[in-house]
Amino acid sequence: MRIALDAMGGDHGSDQLIAGALEAVCAFGHQVILVGDQQILQRALEQQAKIHLANCSGDCACARDLDAHLSRISIVHTTQVVGMEESPLDGIRKKKDSSIRVAFQLLHQQRADAVVSAGNSGATLAAAIKEVGRLPGIARPGIAGIFPTLKQPLVMMDVGANVDCRPQHLYQFAIMATAFSKALFGIDQPKVGLLSIGEEGGKGNALVKSTHEILRQSSLNYLGNVEGRDVFRGDVDVMVCDGFVGNVCLKLSEGLAEALVSMLREELTKSLKSKVGYLLTRKAYANVKKRTDYAEYGGGPLLGLNGTGIICHGRSNAKAIKNAIRVAAELVANGMNQRIVEMLGSSTVQMDGQEGE
Amino acid sequence: MRIALDAMGGDHGSDQLIAGALEAVCAFGHQVILVGDQQILQRALEQQAKIHLANCSGDCACARDLDAHLSRISIVHTTQVVGMEESPLDGIRKKKDSSIRVAFQLLHQQRADAVVSAGNSGATLAAAIKEVGRLPGIARPGIAGIFPTLKQPLVMMDVGANVDCRPQHLYQFAIMATAFSKALFGIDQPKVGLLSIGEEGGKGNALVKSTHEILRQSSLNYLGNVEGRDVFRGDVDVMVCDGFVGNVCLKLSEGLAEALVSMLREELTKSLKSKVGYLLTRKAYANVKKRTDYAEYGGGPLLGLNGTGIICHGRSNAKAIKNAIRVAAELVANGMNQRIVEMLGSSTVQMDGQEGE
Repeated sequence: MRIALDAMGGDHGSDQLIAGALEAVCAFGHQVILVGDQQILQRALEQQAKIHLANCSGDCACARDLDAHLSRISIVHTTQVVGMEESPLDGIRKKKDSSIRVAFQLLHQQRADAVVSAGNSGATLAAAIKEVGRLPGIARPGIAGIFPTLKQPLVMMDVGANVDCRPQHLYQFAIMATAFSKALFGIDQPKVGLLSIGEEGGKGNALVKSTHEILRQSSLNYLGNVEGRDVFRGDVDVMVCDGFVGNVCLKLSEGLAEALVSMLREELTKSLKSKVGYLLTRKAYANVKKRTDYAEYGGGPLLGLNGTGIICHGRSNAKAIKNAIRVAAELVANGMNQRIVEMLGSSTVQMDGQEGE
Repeated sequence: MRIALDAMGGDHGSDQLIAGALEAVCAFGHQVILVGDQQILQRALEQQAKIHLANCSGDCACARDLDAHLSRISIVHTTQVVGMEESPLDGIRKKKDSSIRVAFQLLHQQRADAVVSAGNSGATLAAAIKEVGRLPGIARPGIAGIFPTLKQPLVMMDVGANVDCRPQHLYQFAIMATAFSKALFGIDQPKVGLLSIGEEGGKGNALVKSTHEILRQSSLNYLGNVEGRDVFRGDVDVMVCDGFVGNVCLKLSEGLAEALVSMLREELTKSLKSKVGYLLTRKAYANVKKRTDYAEYGGGPLLGLNGTGIICHGRSNAKAIKNAIRVAAELVANGMNQRIVEMLGSSTVQMDGQEGE
């Protein structure tokens, strides 16, 4: 499996991205194509390879044959970068040789099987649509977010690509997220919920009420409206919402978790007794952190593309990049896009005439 | 100050409500009018008064003269109740003698200064609008939610009354929440943020983009778009959003906090070491719980009414009811509604013609 990595994006520069690529090569045997400035990336790769070799434990290929191992990583040179704060559409239009556009060109040319990017999210989406286009029948590609719950992870879609939606868009999000849930988590009939502000079908805003009627008639495993309170219970596998609400949910959750940790840290360091107590409970905290760590899945997949792409958090660490590469490869291997096309094809729900390609 | 309490609403029956009323009388000296079935409430009041007296510590009036203390609590008999699951509009229309309608009638007749209810939220809002009406110039009353943050509490509006909004509605929410923040927290120029998915003014959905333009031209202390991640930082005092997004935020926050506590509890009980550690850190947890306890403010005020009302959580405990009574009285004493009318009157923002009374 060949994964193109935009090695110029993200908040932390290329080092964490390349460290993640090395870990993915080591753990999964995939090939990684680093896309970006040849000179910068070559130097960073040499440095990170040394660090990786020094830290790499166990029976992996690095120790036996670093050169063979490194031969799985190649560099494709580009001269431009779309910055994190840059206007996505402008950046993509003007910078034809940007790392993110070239990464998706490799996908389009079948020189890569998937793309991973921790750069400007809007630019990643725009480059993807420009270079590989949408799957047939998909009105709007979107971004899925993976939320930890008390049970299995939940896939929420859309979490930011489409802020003003029609019911048909939400219906397609439900199909795409269902296909994703099947392909990544192996769930046979993912349970679908519609994010609303009351459990009865009649509750919600105009968009949600109309979407409820479409989902009810669909062949999806639709359970009905689900309230915000129940997102983290894990009673559904897929949660459908528009990209404005989904993005607010994603960021509110991050912010609340950070605020609670910050409050707890402040309280725990107030007395010697609680400091000692904290030392004894550190493992419990570490386990909760692991259970809620965004890096476990690396990022949000772009769904609805004629190809496979993962958008990672700008501040992704090596572990997040490694896992994003793993997830991207699994989505390709498990034929997620084929599943989406089949589900759309067998859908009995009539789409609005304006909604097509 | 005379507060009418719908003593039949809520998930826990009348006992917690009456216990809260007794605590409020004890702590603040307000008068409370219990509205509901005379026989049920009289019996519950006698029981709760005994429990209250047994638990009441310190220098309060209960111990010296329970009868004088109890004379501050009266009962207004009603024969009907709008159930928690009942359709709000139907319930209000059909049940003319329901506790929630009669509570707002007392407000309308100036026999009470404010209403507190832990019953059906929709029915509370509908009864309020029916019995006391809106403030002049207010297109849509709404519910404010009080969120804990790392600094002072944040007021979010709307959190559930108005799911499909126009920009003018959000502008009025900003005015009402600003007046509330001044009246309850004594903040001179509350900082107003617009909940969006990017900090730049051009980011967000169509509703948010138009609202941004109105707020920018207003005389409010408007700071611009604020992301979900920053809600809990406390950088703004007022957060404006539509009632769908606000309600999702409110419930998502509750759900996430519960899930994190549940995960932590599970991890902390896994080993003897962590159990001991937990015992040493219990105070820290209790402090965080206190800092994030919804019961500190009792509930969400109904803003935009020609009167004062607080909607409490259905599962409110006595502490929440006590604090809701305190907040209701403070809003009346500090002239919140007068402030709203003045701010609307001096507003230079032109309202859409369709938006008036």
